Amino acid sequence: MSSITVGILGATGYTGVELIKLLSNHPSATLSFVSSQTYSGKKMSEVFPELKYVCDDVLLSPEDAIKQTVDCVFSCLPHATSAGLCKPFIDKGIRVIDLSADFRIKDPKAYAQWYKTEHPYPQLLEKAVFGLPEHYRSAIAQASLLANPGCYSSSIMLPLIPLYKERASQLTGVIADSKSGVSGAGRSLKLSSLFVEAHENFAAYSIGRAHRHLAEIDQELSYACGKKVEITFSPHLAPINRGILSTIYINGQLSAEECLEIINRAYTNEPFIRVRDPGDLPSVRDVAYTNFCDIGVAGGGSGQPVIIVCTIDNLLKGASGQALQNMNIMFGFKETTALQ
Amino acid sequence: MSSITVGILGATGYTGVELIKLLSNHPSATLSFVSSQTYSGKKMSEVFPELKYVCDDVLLSPEDAIKQTVDCVFSCLPHATSAGLCKPFIDKGIRVIDLSADFRIKDPKAYAQWYKTEHPYPQLLEKAVFGLPEHYRSAIAQASLLANPGCYSSSIMLPLIPLYKERASQLTGVIADSKSGVSGAGRSLKLSSLFVEAHENFAAYSIGRAHRHLAEIDQELSYACGKKVEITFSPHLAPINRGILSTIYINGQLSAEECLEIINRAYTNEPFIRVRDPGDLPSVRDVAYTNFCDIGVAGGGSGQPVIIVCTIDNLLKGASGQALQNMNIMFGFKETTALQ
Amino acid sequence: MSSITVGILGATGYTGVELIKLLSNHPSATLSFVSSQTYSGKKMSEVFPELKYVCDDVLLSPEDAIKQTVDCVFSCLPHATSAGLCKPFIDKGIRVIDLSADFRIKDPKAYAQWYKTEHPYPQLLEKAVFGLPEHYRSAIAQASLLANPGCYSSSIMLPLIPLYKERASQLTGVIADSKSGVSGAGRSLKLSSLFVEAHENFAAYSIGRAHRHLAEIDQELSYACGKKVEITFSPHLAPINRGILSTIYINGQLSAEECLEIINRAYTNEPFIRVRDPGDLPSVRDVAYTNFCDIGVAGGGSGQPVIIVCTIDNLLKGASGQALQNMNIMFGFKETTALQ
Amino acid sequence: MSSITVGILGATGYTGVELIKLLSNHPSATLSFVSSQTYSGKKMSEVFPELKYVCDDVLLSPEDAIKQTVDCVFSCLPHATSAGLCKPFIDKGIRVIDLSADFRIKDPKAYAQWYKTEHPYPQLLEKAVFGLPEHYRSAIAQASLLANPGCYSSSIMLPLIPLYKERASQLTGVIADSKSGVSGAGRSLKLSSLFVEAHENFAAYSIGRAHRHLAEIDQELSYACGKKVEITFSPHLAPINRGILSTIYINGQLSAEECLEIINRAYTNEPFIRVRDPGDLPSVRDVAYTNFCDIGVAGGGSGQPVIIVCTIDNLLKGASGQALQNMNIMFGFKETTALQ
Repeated sequence: MSSITVGILGATGYTGVELIKLLSNHPSATLSFVSSQTYSGKKMSEVFPELKYVCDDVLLSPEDAIKQTVDCVFSCLPHATSAGLCKPFIDKGIRVIDLSADFRIKDPKAYAQWYKTEHPYPQLLEKAVFGLPEHYRSAIAQASLLANPGCYSSSIMLPLIPLYKERASQLTGVIADSKSGVSGAGRSLKLSSLFVEAHENFAAYSIGRAHRHLAEIDQELSYACGKKVEITFSPHLAPINRGILSTIYINGQLSAEECLEIINRAYTNEPFIRVRDPGDLPSVRDVAYTNFCDIGVAGGGSGQPVIIVCTIDNLLKGASGQALQNMNIMFGFKETTALQ
Repeated sequence: MSSITVGILGATGYTGVELIKLLSNHPSATLSFVSSQTYSGKKMSEVFPELKYVCDDVLLSPEDAIKQTVDCVFSCLPHATSAGLCKPFIDKGIRVIDLSADFRIKDPKAYAQWYKTEHPYPQLLEKAVFGLPEHYRSAIAQASLLANPGCYSSSIMLPLIPLYKERASQLTGVIADSKSGVSGAGRSLKLSSLFVEAHENFAAYSIGRAHRHLAEIDQELSYACGKKVEITFSPHLAPINRGILSTIYINGQLSAEECLEIINRAYTNEPFIRVRDPGDLPSVRDVAYTNFCDIGVAGGGSGQPVIIVCTIDNLLKGASGQALQNMNIMFGFKETTALQ
Repeated sequence: MSSITVGILGATGYTGVELIKLLSNHPSATLSFVSSQTYSGKKMSEVFPELKYVCDDVLLSPEDAIKQTVDCVFSCLPHATSAGLCKPFIDKGIRVIDLSADFRIKDPKAYAQWYKTEHPYPQLLEKAVFGLPEHYRSAIAQASLLANPGCYSSSIMLPLIPLYKERASQLTGVIADSKSGVSGAGRSLKLSSLFVEAHENFAAYSIGRAHRHLAEIDQELSYACGKKVEITFSPHLAPINRGILSTIYINGQLSAEECLEIINRAYTNEPFIRVRDPGDLPSVRDVAYTNFCDIGVAGGGSGQPVIIVCTIDNLLKGASGQALQNMNIMFGFKETTALQ
Repeated sequence: MSSITVGILGATGYTGVELIKLLSNHPSATLSFVSSQTYSGKKMSEVFPELKYVCDDVLLSPEDAIKQTVDCVFSCLPHATSAGLCKPFIDKGIRVIDLSADFRIKDPKAYAQWYKTEHPYPQLLEKAVFGLPEHYRSAIAQASLLANPGCYSSSIMLPLIPLYKERASQLTGVIADSKSGVSGAGRSLKLSSLFVEAHENFAAYSIGRAHRHLAEIDQELSYACGKKVEITFSPHLAPINRGILSTIYINGQLSAEECLEIINRAYTNEPFIRVRDPGDLPSVRDVAYTNFCDIGVAGGGSGQPVIIVCTIDNLLKGASGQALQNMNIMFGFKETTALQ
């Protein structure tokens, strides 16, 4: 395809801003509209002065946005709201990339259980493609509705899916101890997101089996191995703007060498997955402001768990970067366009 | 005892500064000398302007320091160096509180293995008392040589010792995923301690069975239950000045309720251990700049691990605060003096 | 006086928490009540888990608070609200220390102009004593209503008042370029106080002649020299929790040596003002978590301005610490009690 | 020109890494070599894992580097060292872009005075072009030796040069109060660059007329107006990785409106200079990770100084971004290539 037009719903959150920056460097995609409930009528660059000369478009209201016709719509809206605004575009046959959780869960009952609300369009769930490019590339190419994975989820699924595909029976007691930057909580006004509360602080929250991303993590790991998987997941809030580091414990019969070999083999030709040498571990700064996912393996031996460390930028490979990667696949562009 | 004199060896590291601040509020202890190899001849307040009017003493050289006579000496020197400078004081019958690792390990072979050097005075190891007040209070009261525990170790041992004492057979696959502030690395010039390297970063290091604090953690947990224990320990560097949060996974047959009950019972009357209500988890800011150790329990059920979250200030309950708590016990002062 | 009882209105902001911590170490003051509109009925330690074992009192509603009788009331409420809740205590003859701006400005017109509201009790303005202990100690000792100075203001007035007292005619074009930590903005939910907005950021705001603290700065400098003074003041938001550093330019005929000499002379016996040697400049960390105000002087010569650098902890010498210092003076306690 | 080859001397500092990232997106420039004294023989991506898949080149020693032939050499070496390694390339007729201070100062005596060493090649100083694209574009296009401006300097000269060009006689008492991120201090091991020293801290240093960047600031402002200019400059260290905000006071007869009009006019068509509306001030986050320079004007009136706030990313518009902008001009590429 030569060139496409795109729109962004809910453009004034952190993922919207990142998407706009990425798209401004894309040679074959033109931003046609941006919308916002809160800031409609203002220029994007008035709300975010960093975007002056980059995106000076006036934000549409949601009502005006749904009248627009483009080749591709990104939704950066929160879950529950997102499905409602994506629907009109889907109905018009416009391809939609939803960064919320609304189309990630195949089972409407699981959605209702984790997100505490009935799904408004359960019939769309089947149709949606889960947008993990390294594992669903051909389905993504055909997708009309794409569910972009969660940030924590991406950092956990990317290293684990190859292992569950090949050695599920040897994996037990899998624990993901994840640490995320504060931008993961979005730009809404919450006490725990205040600078003075988060700075010089470090906190665990929703640990064990409580965080919503478990819905998609369980789903995808179960799909990878064909049986029900439920891992332990402990999110933590780290005083950084962006980045996730997941430390994953595999209490199984696999050695570190086997794990590394399987992961390496799965991602040999992947442009955005960088697997480290044995014992070499990635840190958040290695991937910040990039679409890379870095994976290192250590531990194991003498009954000790194998330990996988996986890092991504939560706003890029964990959100907007992966969304653009999916757009590139869907529209036949080089997958790395505007992402390097 | 009415009043004592104390000296500090290696006073110009972060633990030395904290100790000086604490001692400046102690009604019954007078600081007699501070020493430093690097800064001898300078005033403490020249090296740390924050200490002006608090400690304007001139730093002695180590050579001059060992000629001093006081009631109690604190060593804030690095391991290997510390034992050498503590020895002359021990020989003079002066009570010594060593904040380094030099007297923590009972087995000289384990010391040599973990610290890559032969212990210079293995005969002193037996004599040294491990300074965890909540578990060795009566021995501490009699100690002439006190080994102050490590920072990571304190945050892991305090919640685990009561469990190992009572239910060791039900504890398997224990994992401590710990996050520490950068002051834990000391004030020496290392690339990884540079602001630009650590800020907006988060990193794992020495994970699995590689970090030296495992020597004392294994020793104390094994002692608590009377059999050999080896846990998994993954330290991480968090971009905060001070504080440790350890997330501990217990993959056993205990419920969260049982764990909480045991921990609660163990620490009912402890002034510095605050056990949270079920599901309520402490964060670093709750304990920063205090001698408190906060413990919360969550998880468990349906085959899921119980998860304990423990936080301390690495420079206080993890170092200088605990050292002063030990001094109070050793000299018969109220244990909380100058620590509240 | 042997011992007093105190209450805190609006105890759940950052200054309230600091005050509670300070009071918990005061041997002659007992906290009788804490109040909060938002959190009444909860324990202080539920709202701030860091205060467990320190202050487990249940927060009163403002309605219940005003029925209490104590020796001294601190108000940590925002301006406009504060005067209203202080009034009933003043009427009962209870001594009040107000940390808001409500009683700082002598001229009701100036108050109305800067704070965009008529003062509810203009007759009280005359009665209120401005609580800068180093300059109004004897009046403070007699005060029934004390107006505690603002944080920025303290960092600017403390170095400048001695100069205006002695050499006002030689001072022209005075500029205060101030940098404050985010706690200065309080604990309310504002976009600019969000972690992601403030972290890795640095911003100027309300610069020139726009910030409300100018009302009290102008008033006090004018009072010091007996003629009208209007300085330039540029506040900036720095990504730190606490601390203010003010860089003050004096474009006059004074030399750096003269300035330093005057400042030194003014503060020779002051326990909380530390004046540096020539050319030696304080930084925020030197005073963080203390009631100290550090002052250094540099620049000057060859037509260059003299440059004064002044640092305080905005929550202590800039708020709660100074408030407690004032309480100590008002009730005849040693001025440094619970502040060292 | 179709395509060029480039080399980077001293590639393992922060500016080298930024330059490599920028060049990796340049369609017409190919990185031929990178060199480092400290890390020669290692891959760039071993030293900086973030560069894996981006630059896996092996670092040459300086000795091997000077044997290379390329179209353009960037030097990211420290001053004094840089001139020595640039010289062989200059002699071979290779165009050199030096990011150090070695060729910025026209007057060898001024260089010797500020940098405390005789310049090794004073005859080259005349030949070097000062690389401020917005003011020396045509000379840059012809430059064989380009002196890239300092970071602080850029943030001060860009707003001030237009004013000095047009209204020098009305400018008096100019003060630049600048705040810089820690990356400005480079990647060398210094106590003041340690995380624990800089985090939660804010400090002034080398204030008044002490910082070396004054040499180039004075030179360029003097050149702009044809008479000797000496401004006041106070650098401060802010706890951020990158970014500079300069608050500039102009104590003259100009109004804020006039200043803004002059600056606006000077930069109307400049792609990287964004001038704000009256009273609207830029912050560091607006320009971080970009080559933009944002300028806002406020203050003035009633004898008050006009206040200019200027922000740049110290590693981009303040170093590597500006260097690439200069390369684009020198080799006839579109000036914004790889910079948007």
